[in-house]
Amino acid sequence: MFIPTLQGQTNDEQLDEWLSLAIARGIIGTYAQTELGHGTNLKNLETTATYDPKTEEFVINSPTITAAKWWPGALGKSSNYAVVVAQLYTQGVCHGPHPFIVQLRDLETHKPLKGVRVGDIGPKFGFNSSDNGFLLFDNYRIPRQNMLMRYSKVERDGTYVAPKHSKLGYGTMVFVRSIMIKDQATQLAAAACIATRYSAIRRQGEIEQGAGEVQILDYQTQQFRLMPQLARAFAFMFAAYEIRDMYMKVTEQLTHGNVDLLPEIHALSSGLKSVVSWEAAQGIEQCRLACGGHGYSLASAFPEIYAYSVGGCTYEGENIVMLLQVARFLMKAAEEVRTGNARLATICAYLAKPDAAHSNFKTWQTYSDSDIVQDFEHVARKQVFRAYDTLKRHQRETSTEEAWNRASIELCKASRMHVRLYLIRTFLEKVATAPDASLRTPLTDLTRLYAFDMITASQGEFLKGGYMSESQAEGIRDGIYRCLERLRPNAVSLVDSWDFDDAELHSVLGRRDGNVYPALLEWAQKSQLNKTEVLPTFEKYLGPMMKEGRSKL
Amino acid sequence: MFIPTLQGQTNDEQLDEWLSLAIARGIIGTYAQTELGHGTNLKNLETTATYDPKTEEFVINSPTITAAKWWPGALGKSSNYAVVVAQLYTQGVCHGPHPFIVQLRDLETHKPLKGVRVGDIGPKFGFNSSDNGFLLFDNYRIPRQNMLMRYSKVERDGTYVAPKHSKLGYGTMVFVRSIMIKDQATQLAAAACIATRYSAIRRQGEIEQGAGEVQILDYQTQQFRLMPQLARAFAFMFAAYEIRDMYMKVTEQLTHGNVDLLPEIHALSSGLKSVVSWEAAQGIEQCRLACGGHGYSLASAFPEIYAYSVGGCTYEGENIVMLLQVARFLMKAAEEVRTGNARLATICAYLAKPDAAHSNFKTWQTYSDSDIVQDFEHVARKQVFRAYDTLKRHQRETSTEEAWNRASIELCKASRMHVRLYLIRTFLEKVATAPDASLRTPLTDLTRLYAFDMITASQGEFLKGGYMSESQAEGIRDGIYRCLERLRPNAVSLVDSWDFDDAELHSVLGRRDGNVYPALLEWAQKSQLNKTEVLPTFEKYLGPMMKEGRSKL
Repeated sequence: MFIPTLQGQTNDEQLDEWLSLAIARGIIGTYAQTELGHGTNLKNLETTATYDPKTEEFVINSPTITAAKWWPGALGKSSNYAVVVAQLYTQGVCHGPHPFIVQLRDLETHKPLKGVRVGDIGPKFGFNSSDNGFLLFDNYRIPRQNMLMRYSKVERDGTYVAPKHSKLGYGTMVFVRSIMIKDQATQLAAAACIATRYSAIRRQGEIEQGAGEVQILDYQTQQFRLMPQLARAFAFMFAAYEIRDMYMKVTEQLTHGNVDLLPEIHALSSGLKSVVSWEAAQGIEQCRLACGGHGYSLASAFPEIYAYSVGGCTYEGENIVMLLQVARFLMKAAEEVRTGNARLATICAYLAKPDAAHSNFKTWQTYSDSDIVQDFEHVARKQVFRAYDTLKRHQRETSTEEAWNRASIELCKASRMHVRLYLIRTFLEKVATAPDASLRTPLTDLTRLYAFDMITASQGEFLKGGYMSESQAEGIRDGIYRCLERLRPNAVSLVDSWDFDDAELHSVLGRRDGNVYPALLEWAQKSQLNKTEVLPTFEKYLGPMMKEGRSKL
Repeated sequence: MFIPTLQGQTNDEQLDEWLSLAIARGIIGTYAQTELGHGTNLKNLETTATYDPKTEEFVINSPTITAAKWWPGALGKSSNYAVVVAQLYTQGVCHGPHPFIVQLRDLETHKPLKGVRVGDIGPKFGFNSSDNGFLLFDNYRIPRQNMLMRYSKVERDGTYVAPKHSKLGYGTMVFVRSIMIKDQATQLAAAACIATRYSAIRRQGEIEQGAGEVQILDYQTQQFRLMPQLARAFAFMFAAYEIRDMYMKVTEQLTHGNVDLLPEIHALSSGLKSVVSWEAAQGIEQCRLACGGHGYSLASAFPEIYAYSVGGCTYEGENIVMLLQVARFLMKAAEEVRTGNARLATICAYLAKPDAAHSNFKTWQTYSDSDIVQDFEHVARKQVFRAYDTLKRHQRETSTEEAWNRASIELCKASRMHVRLYLIRTFLEKVATAPDASLRTPLTDLTRLYAFDMITASQGEFLKGGYMSESQAEGIRDGIYRCLERLRPNAVSLVDSWDFDDAELHSVLGRRDGNVYPALLEWAQKSQLNKTEVLPTFEKYLGPMMKEGRSKL
């Protein structure tokens, strides 16, 4: 977290200075923004940085318990420096949250410096490899130069210089979220890989009597649990690559002071972060559940994958809050369309398209990429304007802010559909242009399964206004079954294509060699409880209790 | 697990003998059925119990690694006895799985007896308070009397006596599942209680500018996350009470040899187990996510509640397998309706009702209990027959077994809708007859929210065939918003009504006194990592690494 933050916010000299310092001195740093009492509403962070022109220092202070910095990774016991976000006060005026580099611990003794109270926040949901920390300041002084001054500045005399563009800092958020999307896609892929491999090893029950137990991957219900996760993992990965490329382009433009694409990529990365992190987490749980009891054991690796991945729904912007940010962008676009003044971002161009009366779907085989895109555009557009009209209706009855609140469920729904449209479109484009044509058949099956599954999950939206007929919806549903059948023989190859190493998957169930059962027994032997045949608790509690029972016989 | 199993399977003398033995001797027992290689398909369990008439003993054996008993709670290190399910062989014939009482460890030394290999299976998904174990036998002998002979018997000479009714053992499963439903409902209630209380304490962001930060429970999106969980918790609890009463009735009938209600309650308890465990787990995660970062800390108690609760989707019958069992029952009923030979169980009576053309919904206020039931009956019936027709269509093309497999997604969907109908009907009935009339208003709001939320989630099913118009669906959706508004002022009282004790919730976020922030800081202090200011790892690794870095400056 340290390096990207620095890249985004320091001016060039500071960046050089701090980076060389950090690398040479083996400094461990973290980014401390969230507080005990505030995460989402950054405006109200409570930590203060008050400039003192006499000494040319900032005084960092935590006026309340809720001002404690809370959650930063590696803050508790490891970091000796942090980028601390605090309300900047100078010349008696508050200029809002700004970032400061703050030394926390002595470089020699590693003890917290005077005025700094720091520690670990305790165990979390299955993710205990980081000492997430808390941090409180008691009027702790740092030099003026420690403010990150790439965008805003405080002069020696305390004069505040505002940034040229208030959104310039967004680049970093976009970067971090684009990394997250790749990460979430990879977690889902790992889960799908483990579950698919195990489902080819596990045999349970007979389909045809007397024909022997079948691989559980032959059950339609098992395929329906796993293969949509496989499809999602591919879709999310392609989106991650796409947004990484887009970020590069935007960064290039920013260096020339061009901020045109910033709102678009900010909205897109926020929306993707939200949809991908949630659907990845849900998908991972489906993979875990599909492995029955063994999926519940840490031997499967699923519990860690889930607990790690689902954290992504909360950090770097809580998902619902993210969706509402996307909605702000969409409502502006909807307003432009309605006022006939459409200067729409490419990603919103579909909002200005005329409505098609009906879906072109005839059979699952003839359903083309452009038909699919048209259908997803249709429902996304409908929902965006439904949310827009809901908002306008409430605005006639109450304040703008309360109207926004009352429309917020519809707004979130609009954002989700907008993001899903982006995901399917990107997936289709990437597959259509895949360099190796022989890969296109199974990948196309995956795009269909992905599309059919999404359509079926929100069938009502597609049926509304007679856009899809019931027999079309039926055809889509049958398409799912056909895709499952077609993907079944390729399933293991598809997950193998991600080329996870056994050491990366860290899963007894997902072993490449399929030698699951002996490995499970071997893994179990290593349980700490198996170090002795009889636990000390027997001598201490169980034995005497039982003995007493017997003496009364 | 020990006691209910004994009640279900022993004959009366055995029950008395073993119970008194267990209680007096402080015996710790468990029920060992699932094996490393087989959980769902009991028929293929591999552990054998071969009767030896010469010594009047059974020889218990694990012929393979996959025959290892796997998962039983308290088996690893604590139990000295177990009820072991094994394939019964006598006079050269296999009679399928039967239960046997087997001593595992010496009562004095607690060491495993010769021929018994037993241990812990290692850490699991957040649930580590039980030493779930593995167990292997090497031709281990037990006396004939240790077979549980309430239903089946083996005579001294090895003659096998079959049970009078093959389904008699189902009573125990029903009992265990009915306890599970109550347990799952309680877990969901606990999560809803924690999240609702915290949402009344946490303030974040402003709705009206300058009016100060609002309780996050005032956000529509937050209400939409939490209140349906609250409604579900009540619905599930009422269903749990109902099925407990039904179990009592069936048990009473069974003592008179009347097994009429057994298939019905078996199907119902399987279906409820599946739907309730999954929806409770999903609901708990929503409650956790609604508490942001703090929900991810173990201080919230959510991670343990989730990890414990979600296990219920797998144990006591994997959920998809359960739904397919319900489907068998429903397909029989559908067949009876179609052949005009309807002798339907009460719970299936709706399948024989004629279709209504349209929903009676006019406004959310006038939507009566019977209107709601009619609408849920309609979609459940439609789906049951859709699944039935799918099954029949496949049967014309392939074998009965493969047809079942190919229809299984539709079959599961039918089961879910059947169970949801039961849940809403029970919920409505219980609220309508609530003894305290003053409670009926908020509880009725909860029934509406529960119904509206379910309808909206599978809107497509209600729209099909024009059963609901789009404006009706719109009205239902608006009903959700109205219910959320109406429930908001009562939310905290509703969760307080469950009367959880702070020690039961074990949650810093869900404290009754609302003193969340100081308590979080206090809880964090207790982290093991905070025992020393500087961790030993600093001396060992970090310090020298940093020193080396500095020496190169």
